[in-house]
Amino acid sequence: MAAKVTPWEVKGKINYNKLIKDFGLKSMSSLKLPAVFEKEVLFRRGLVFAHRDFERILKAIKEKKPFVMMTGLMPSGKMHFGHKMVADQVIFYQKLGAKVYLNVADIEAYNSRSDNLKELHKVALEEYLTNYVALGLDLSKCDFYFQSKRSLDGAKSNSYYSLASMLARHVTYNEFKAIYGDVSPGKMAAALLQAADMLHPQLPEFEGKPLPVVVPVGADQDPHLRLARDLAKRCKLHKFIQLSSTNHKFAFGLKGGKMSSSDLTSYIALSEDPKEAARKIKKYAFSGGRATLEEHRKKGGNPDVDVAFQMLKFGLESDDSKLEDLRKKYLSGEMLSGEMKMYLVEKITEFLESHHKKRKVAKKQVKKFMKENVF
Amino acid sequence: MAAKVTPWEVKGKINYNKLIKDFGLKSMSSLKLPAVFEKEVLFRRGLVFAHRDFERILKAIKEKKPFVMMTGLMPSGKMHFGHKMVADQVIFYQKLGAKVYLNVADIEAYNSRSDNLKELHKVALEEYLTNYVALGLDLSKCDFYFQSKRSLDGAKSNSYYSLASMLARHVTYNEFKAIYGDVSPGKMAAALLQAADMLHPQLPEFEGKPLPVVVPVGADQDPHLRLARDLAKRCKLHKFIQLSSTNHKFAFGLKGGKMSSSDLTSYIALSEDPKEAARKIKKYAFSGGRATLEEHRKKGGNPDVDVAFQMLKFGLESDDSKLEDLRKKYLSGEMLSGEMKMYLVEKITEFLESHHKKRKVAKKQVKKFMKENVF
Repeated sequence: MAAKVTPWEVKGKINYNKLIKDFGLKSMSSLKLPAVFEKEVLFRRGLVFAHRDFERILKAIKEKKPFVMMTGLMPSGKMHFGHKMVADQVIFYQKLGAKVYLNVADIEAYNSRSDNLKELHKVALEEYLTNYVALGLDLSKCDFYFQSKRSLDGAKSNSYYSLASMLARHVTYNEFKAIYGDVSPGKMAAALLQAADMLHPQLPEFEGKPLPVVVPVGADQDPHLRLARDLAKRCKLHKFIQLSSTNHKFAFGLKGGKMSSSDLTSYIALSEDPKEAARKIKKYAFSGGRATLEEHRKKGGNPDVDVAFQMLKFGLESDDSKLEDLRKKYLSGEMLSGEMKMYLVEKITEFLESHHKKRKVAKKQVKKFMKENVF
Repeated sequence: MAAKVTPWEVKGKINYNKLIKDFGLKSMSSLKLPAVFEKEVLFRRGLVFAHRDFERILKAIKEKKPFVMMTGLMPSGKMHFGHKMVADQVIFYQKLGAKVYLNVADIEAYNSRSDNLKELHKVALEEYLTNYVALGLDLSKCDFYFQSKRSLDGAKSNSYYSLASMLARHVTYNEFKAIYGDVSPGKMAAALLQAADMLHPQLPEFEGKPLPVVVPVGADQDPHLRLARDLAKRCKLHKFIQLSSTNHKFAFGLKGGKMSSSDLTSYIALSEDPKEAARKIKKYAFSGGRATLEEHRKKGGNPDVDVAFQMLKFGLESDDSKLEDLRKKYLSGEMLSGEMKMYLVEKITEFLESHHKKRKVAKKQVKKFMKENVF
C-alpha cells in the first residue's frame, strides 16, 4: 500500500525520510542537540525526527533567552499514548525554561464535532489538563486558555481574536482547500484561530515582543505549520519571528496504523484501567512475530512492526540498554511475541498505577487553578 | 435597463414594490407607526419603505422596554448624504430610547480594502464619528467600538469574538457564496464578524438578556440581514430574539444611480466646502427637465428622476408643504431645473455651514470620548 500522510489521512508504511523530502523539512539528526535532550526518549530515540527552524529554539535555550512552546488540544475522546508524546515534549520544554501556551481548541471542536460546549470544556479539564498535570506540567508557568474564552483583559483578548480575523486577508480560498480539503466556513474559522494560536504569543499584549515559538506536531500536521508560517511572513501588522516546529513520528495504534481516538481498539487511554489495558494489548496489539513458534524461533520477529515493542520504544521502557536487549532477543527469535506483550503489560501497569495516583493530586490542582483564574 | 439589486451591484430603475416581494420584506406602509415617527422625514416620506419584524421594535418603544439599534460603518472615503440616512435613523432611535451599538467595520475594511489600520481608524473617528456627533449622536448613550478592538473587559471581548467564530458552524459555503459572490477567506471572516455585530448585544455579557435589535439597512444589504437572521435561528448557544430590520431607499447619486463613495462626482460629502458642493450640483446633478426651455414650460419636468428635487426630498427640505410646492411647480413647468438646483444649493449651503460649525464642537467631543475610553 502506498503511504499517504495528510492532515486527513495517514495510511501505509511511512517512510519518514521521504516525508522530510516531500514536506521540505530538515532532519533532526543533522542538528547537534545539547546534552539535556538526551534525557527525553523522544529525542534520544529519533522519534522527533524532523524540524523547521529549530536552530532558533536551540539558540534561545543556549543563551537562556525567552521562548514559547505552543500546542493545542482537541477536547474530545480520551487522552491516549499518542497525545502523551506531545505532552511529554511540552513538559520537557517547560523544564528547559519555555513559557508554555496550552490551548483548548474548543471552537474547532464546536465547529467540526460536538456542539455541546460544556461537555467539551469538561473533557478538556478532567481528561486532558488533568493528565498533563499528572505527567508533570507546571500550571503556574503555563498560559492555558480556551479558544472561545481568551479572556484576560479586554486588550489582550481582542488582539488574539482580531489577529485571527485579519490573517484571513492573507490567505486564499485555494490555499485553504489544499490544506483542509473541502472547506466549510466552520473549518475556515477554526483554521484562522489555529494560526492565531501559534502567532499571538509574539503580540505586544502577550509576551511583549517577537520571540521564538516552537510547535511540536505529528508529521501529518505539517501543512498547518506551513500555512501559519506563510501567514507570519505575509501579515505586516506585526513583525513576527518565524515559527519553529518539530515533527514526531506517529504513535503506533494497537492494531498497527495510527493511534486514533475515534477507534477504541486502537489506543490505550492514560485513564485506562490497567486490567483493561492488559486485555487490549493481549487481544489487539499487532505482533511482529512469525506464524508458528517454530518459525519464530528460527527466523526471529520483526520489532519494527511489533506494536508491543514499539510502545516500549515510544517511552514505556525508558532504559535504552534494556530496550536494545529486547530488540535483539525478539529479532533473534529468543523472545516470543507473547513475551513481548507480557513485558509491555508489566510496564504499562506500572505506569498507569503510578499515573492514576498522580491524577488524583492533579485533579485538585486543576480545580484550584480553574477557581483562581477567570475563564 | 433591468433593475439589479444585490450587495454588489445596484443598477437600473428600482421598483421598490418588486423588491419587497422578491426579498420577502413587509411594506412599511402596512404598519401603523406612532406619531413620533412623523418627525423624521425618512419615515414620513416613505423613504424607509420596508421592514422585517419591526413590530417588535414598535412594541418596545410603546412599552418603554429596552431595545438596541445596531449599525456599522465602513471607514473608507468620505461620509456623504447616503450615509447620513443611516445616521439620521440611528439618532432618531437613540432619542426614542434605544441603546445604540455603533461599530467600525475595520476588520472588514482591512480584509477587503486597505491594510493601513491606522488610517482606517483615523477616518472612522475624524470623518464618520465626528459627523455622527455633529448630526446629534449622544456618545454617552452609545456603545461605539472597532471590530478589531472589542475591548471592554476580557469576558465581554471574548464572547463577541467567539460568537463570530462559532456562528461559522451554522452556515455553509454555498450560502456564503450566494450572498457574497466569490468568497475569499477575508470576506468570510468579515461576514462572520458582521453577523456577530448584529447578534452580540443580546449576549449575557452585553445587554444581559435577549432583547429586540433593529438594524437599518439600504435595500441592497438585505441578504446580510437574512443570513444573520438564519444564524440567530440555527445557533443554539444562545436564545436570540430574532433581529428586526428596516430597509431604506437609495440616496440618489448626483448623476443618478446610487450614491457611491468610490465616485467623487456621485456624492456630496458632509465635510464638503459649500462652494464645492454648489459646483458639483450645478455641474453633475442629473436633471429631470426637458431638452428645451420651451418644451419644459409646456410639458413640465420629472421630479422623480430630478436629483436636485430628490436630495431635497431625502431631507434637505424638511418642510413637506414647501416640498410639495416645489414638486408641483416643477411638474407643471413653472419651475426650471436650474431653479431647482439653485434652491438645493441654497438649502445645502445652509445645512453645510451649520453642520461645519457643529463639526468643530463634535471634534472635541470625539477626542474627549476617545481619551476617556479604552480602545
